[in-house]
Amino acid sequence: MFTILPIKGYIDQIDGFFCDGIHAGLKPNGNNDLGFIYTKEPCTVAAIFTNNKFQAAPLKHFLQYEEGFKTNFVLINSKNANALTGKKGIEDIKNLFSKLDFDLHNPIMSSTGVIGNRLPIEKLVNGAKKFDLSAKSGENLSKAIMTTDAYPKTCMYEVKLENGKSFKIGAVAKGAGMINPNLATMLCFICTDADAPYEDIKNALEQNKHTTFNAISVDGDTSTNDTVLVLANKKSDAYDKDAFTEALRLVMNDMAMLMVADGEGAKKVAAFEVINAKDDKEAEIAAKALSNSLLVKTALFGEDPNFGRIASTIGASQVLCDDEKLVISYNDVIVFNKGEICFDSEVEKKAGDVLKNDKYKIICDLGIGSGKFTAYGCDLGYKYVEINADYRS
Amino acid sequence: MFTILPIKGYIDQIDGFFCDGIHAGLKPNGNNDLGFIYTKEPCTVAAIFTNNKFQAAPLKHFLQYEEGFKTNFVLINSKNANALTGKKGIEDIKNLFSKLDFDLHNPIMSSTGVIGNRLPIEKLVNGAKKFDLSAKSGENLSKAIMTTDAYPKTCMYEVKLENGKSFKIGAVAKGAGMINPNLATMLCFICTDADAPYEDIKNALEQNKHTTFNAISVDGDTSTNDTVLVLANKKSDAYDKDAFTEALRLVMNDMAMLMVADGEGAKKVAAFEVINAKDDKEAEIAAKALSNSLLVKTALFGEDPNFGRIASTIGASQVLCDDEKLVISYNDVIVFNKGEICFDSEVEKKAGDVLKNDKYKIICDLGIGSGKFTAYGCDLGYKYVEINADYRS
Repeated sequence: MFTILPIKGYIDQIDGFFCDGIHAGLKPNGNNDLGFIYTKEPCTVAAIFTNNKFQAAPLKHFLQYEEGFKTNFVLINSKNANALTGKKGIEDIKNLFSKLDFDLHNPIMSSTGVIGNRLPIEKLVNGAKKFDLSAKSGENLSKAIMTTDAYPKTCMYEVKLENGKSFKIGAVAKGAGMINPNLATMLCFICTDADAPYEDIKNALEQNKHTTFNAISVDGDTSTNDTVLVLANKKSDAYDKDAFTEALRLVMNDMAMLMVADGEGAKKVAAFEVINAKDDKEAEIAAKALSNSLLVKTALFGEDPNFGRIASTIGASQVLCDDEKLVISYNDVIVFNKGEICFDSEVEKKAGDVLKNDKYKIICDLGIGSGKFTAYGCDLGYKYVEINADYRS
Repeated sequence: MFTILPIKGYIDQIDGFFCDGIHAGLKPNGNNDLGFIYTKEPCTVAAIFTNNKFQAAPLKHFLQYEEGFKTNFVLINSKNANALTGKKGIEDIKNLFSKLDFDLHNPIMSSTGVIGNRLPIEKLVNGAKKFDLSAKSGENLSKAIMTTDAYPKTCMYEVKLENGKSFKIGAVAKGAGMINPNLATMLCFICTDADAPYEDIKNALEQNKHTTFNAISVDGDTSTNDTVLVLANKKSDAYDKDAFTEALRLVMNDMAMLMVADGEGAKKVAAFEVINAKDDKEAEIAAKALSNSLLVKTALFGEDPNFGRIASTIGASQVLCDDEKLVISYNDVIVFNKGEICFDSEVEKKAGDVLKNDKYKIICDLGIGSGKFTAYGCDLGYKYVEINADYRS
């Protein structure tokens, strides 16, 4: 349903995780709270972070390195976000790394969990000391960083270029709630052996985030820790800028779609496709308003084709619109057509049937200009409340 | 807890509804779907409406009259919003009024309910024809316009001026969900016998909406039908501009607080008091972000003093803030103090106890400037989902 754009060459989904020389795993006792990525040789690293003004300590720690630096170690914990911990939070990370006796080169930390608690350094050091750095399980790493996630999130692709050369790119991620544009609440670690320069990776991340992580919403909240990291060890001699950008987009899109489908109890993913808005910006405002509307989300949960809530949410978003021009459809079932309510019992049944699916489109044609944007949201039901009413305990 | 400002003279809560010569009631069969306000002599009427771009037909019908017009009849229905019905929706209203044989002077309609259905004119005419126009029950009117409201909402005050003269002012309202700043999703009918000029009423409405109806949020959605009407029959010769403005604010505040406390299953009302922000505008942005955050609302439902979500929501709202300056308290219990987490088990218990109350303050001192704003929100639990998953049926 979510179309894949063409690429120079071929891209195949493959088994396994990461690339030669990039290792990942979790604590040997199997507790899902601490994982790592270790690379034999330091990798080029590029990242994008949350726009939350209270950036967590691991993000500030990362930003203390010079842009374009290389790293060989990422330590990733769940249960504690190390956010709202001020300068002490950054000192805690440095202190932690000083107690590890691996050969560390510009180590990075990445955290998710409860905000407002100091890191339990001794516990983390004791766990990390026992890492098997030769482990190669991206899935284990993904499990280690789950918080309210219902399932681990991974993907892996091989890109075969027209010249016969190939590179790999894959990701592990966590993210289920607090998922809102800019970025979703999430950690995502992307590894590649492509021979990609730092600037290209950084630019491709920035270019792709708009239609992937920034287009999904679970609950309209944006966390303090959102991070997308790309590690490139350049073991392959294959590289093509356009193919790499597109493969990275595909990986980011896969992870974003897995997150929104896992939206803390969500059962449905809706693509809110706003077309013919005044411009792309207004289409984005309307589409994101729809994906964030509690009334829309609860109606999706109830499988209720209440198109009045769709229209009302568009109107409330303050974009240019006119009910004499508006067309609303659930997949191909038109429920409102330029001022004509075409919602008889037959149409209502057809629209209700669309909402019984796991995935569908809600298309809003504003009939004003040529702007378009698609945002992805999910339903919201009892489970979301259950998960979030007492997250800390 | 929500302080009342001083007034020139005295203001007393009194029994009864409305003023001499202003009548209200509902269908004689007692069905809660159709009510009216009837005044013996035409009243001055002023109104403020939703900023939703898809204003419902009754709002457009109102706006066809010349500003400052007088009316003697307001017909109010629930179950059908007459929204998204285009020009036909306005014609339906005119057609309906033409079939009533009362002595009508610039009649007004006000509707709430499902969006996207034509008005059932014959049913409404049959109901309205049986009105007892001498009825005087504001409470019955309030019941007639309830949709997802758990209780009717009314208030009545008598204002005694320093010169010994007095006037009355009271209101009936509906509103429980789709309550979001600009305006809350609501209908509110305020009647007064004060000798207030149209311009003063209109200005007082505009002035007071910011801290009352625009400061409350249940679910972040803004409806197509939000209306606040003031009817003034000027039977009293009492008037003082400041006292009237303040009495109107009090009435609007009462109705707003009843609405947010009735937030579709809500059990708690939180006053999100943001102080020492860069300016009042930024305080408002942060306070409204808090009152709209699903994560904050579900934590309130769980009585969980998860102050990390408070901080994260402030940071996500993009206002100027700094964790080394931020102080967060639940009533008088400080849980975060300028970079110091003071959240030991004793503080956690005290903060948790605050959240067991029905009403409390969450105070966020940003420590940046002198801007302040208080927004009012409620918790969100299973009941909200139940009410909204299939509202139409």
